[in-house]
Amino acid sequence: MEIKNVVVAGGGVLGSQIALQSAYKGFNVSVWLRSEASAERARPKLERLRGIYKQTLQAMKTNPAAYCRGLADSPDTPTEQLDALIAKVDAAADSIRFFTSEQEAFSAADLVVEAIAEVIGEKEAFYGSIRDLLPQRAILCTNSSTLLPSAMMEFTGRPDRFLALHFANNIWKNNTAEVMGTAKTSAESYQAVVDFARAIGMIPLELKKEQPGYLLNSMLVPFLNAAEALLANDVADVETIDKAWMLGTGAPLGPFRILDIVGLATAYNIVAASPAAQEPGSTAQRIAALLKAKIDEGKTGINAGEGFYRY
Amino acid sequence: MEIKNVVVAGGGVLGSQIALQSAYKGFNVSVWLRSEASAERARPKLERLRGIYKQTLQAMKTNPAAYCRGLADSPDTPTEQLDALIAKVDAAADSIRFFTSEQEAFSAADLVVEAIAEVIGEKEAFYGSIRDLLPQRAILCTNSSTLLPSAMMEFTGRPDRFLALHFANNIWKNNTAEVMGTAKTSAESYQAVVDFARAIGMIPLELKKEQPGYLLNSMLVPFLNAAEALLANDVADVETIDKAWMLGTGAPLGPFRILDIVGLATAYNIVAASPAAQEPGSTAQRIAALLKAKIDEGKTGINAGEGFYRY
Repeated sequence: MEIKNVVVAGGGVLGSQIALQSAYKGFNVSVWLRSEASAERARPKLERLRGIYKQTLQAMKTNPAAYCRGLADSPDTPTEQLDALIAKVDAAADSIRFFTSEQEAFSAADLVVEAIAEVIGEKEAFYGSIRDLLPQRAILCTNSSTLLPSAMMEFTGRPDRFLALHFANNIWKNNTAEVMGTAKTSAESYQAVVDFARAIGMIPLELKKEQPGYLLNSMLVPFLNAAEALLANDVADVETIDKAWMLGTGAPLGPFRILDIVGLATAYNIVAASPAAQEPGSTAQRIAALLKAKIDEGKTGINAGEGFYRY
Repeated sequence: MEIKNVVVAGGGVLGSQIALQSAYKGFNVSVWLRSEASAERARPKLERLRGIYKQTLQAMKTNPAAYCRGLADSPDTPTEQLDALIAKVDAAADSIRFFTSEQEAFSAADLVVEAIAEVIGEKEAFYGSIRDLLPQRAILCTNSSTLLPSAMMEFTGRPDRFLALHFANNIWKNNTAEVMGTAKTSAESYQAVVDFARAIGMIPLELKKEQPGYLLNSMLVPFLNAAEALLANDVADVETIDKAWMLGTGAPLGPFRILDIVGLATAYNIVAASPAAQEPGSTAQRIAALLKAKIDEGKTGINAGEGFYRY
């Protein structure tokens, strides 16, 4: 099926990025928001992204390191083409329409990308409110990081046309999109979403079955947890652990640099949710305490200017 | 204390590298071997390394990518200095003496690096045979990857001067050295070994306490295990899992490329030794079966020309 009309539900960090990226790559994009108030919060996010996209394209004229895979096909894109892409950013950002009415937003959708809060009750209410408004053909995707699509598929009324399309933050730069269906997702819907991901400049990563944490987090969480355990058990300091990983594997970042990017609050929520964290004296409990102490000091990561490192 | 005379016990893959690297950096190096037959096997290893060191220094004259941190202080080392270093390789390799007599090998040792088989009984016999021959001042290090120094310290008769100094394979290139003492290791011995590691061109990674797997393997094993689980559970294919890691973290190698370097036999031994691998239907058992099938086909990794990838 051909996808032209894309509706993004939610105007948060990822929702606004998915909207602009899809518009930039030529789709008709609408953003649905729960209220006028949330629309007011979404607009400045979009304007900020407009600036980032344009500045990045501008920087790519002179600095090869500025290249972002989601914005241009090649790091050697000539200046005149970059100017055309900058104009395209403005056209894209101007073209995005905001709606608070489900009727107006969803009645012509070919593809919906749901990026609302990670609360199962809110997902259920949302899918329930649009299922009878959507055209028969429309495919629904969730960007949920923490809920499996099979837990939501029956809310949608179309489990064969429902799957997960999971983006990384800063999608114009970190342009992976994990595509994950349920046992009920049709091969045709799956392929249409893979094609859509590629069409908006993403590198689709195809999962053959459901996996909590998808691919990246399934590896990242145990790796970061092992690094946190070394620190919490006082085996070595942050710098030494990072150095061991970087020198041993050639990676550009050690686990504590990655944790600063992920954010210590997210890391804390993951470890605190594990059953082991309830056991007094366990490594998990020591990790949780260590992260909590830093969070309480405001050292939540790179966005706060300090986490395990200062920025 | 000043270290001049270094004795490496064992002439295997790591033993021969430690010997040449120490001689190259100006130490008096002896290699102790159990028998004439093992000495005969050790000599060609040393000659092969001599060739690699010289070829690498030669390549560094024209190719910045050939730079190895263990061989020169800077990637910009001028040609005449590289020629001097090439001459130094020959002098170093020629200077190494091989002994099968403990008396001759160990009686003037300042530092012993034990790199014999990973069998606790053999370690015990070895330390027992040299403890009364060593000068009082001598420090003993084990390069063991799998045995904790505390499990061996009482064999040595000098637990305060005994610790682990753990090298990575291809030490002239992968020049990390994990330094790990026991609760009985003196601060002075620990520092002397850190200084020695630095003096032979290694980057010392200081562990504050004992940790099975040291730093690197403590992170690598759970990370690789998570990747193996994704494959064994048929969540995605090798290339997709590697791509997810590389694109998501900026790492140059994905987990299956790393497994090909580590070797599938080592990965198999680690997973097969876990209690979960005995449980029918467990992920660990599926991982073990998957690795065993590849090993049985001779696809043991990069050294065999094929593992998860072809080379």
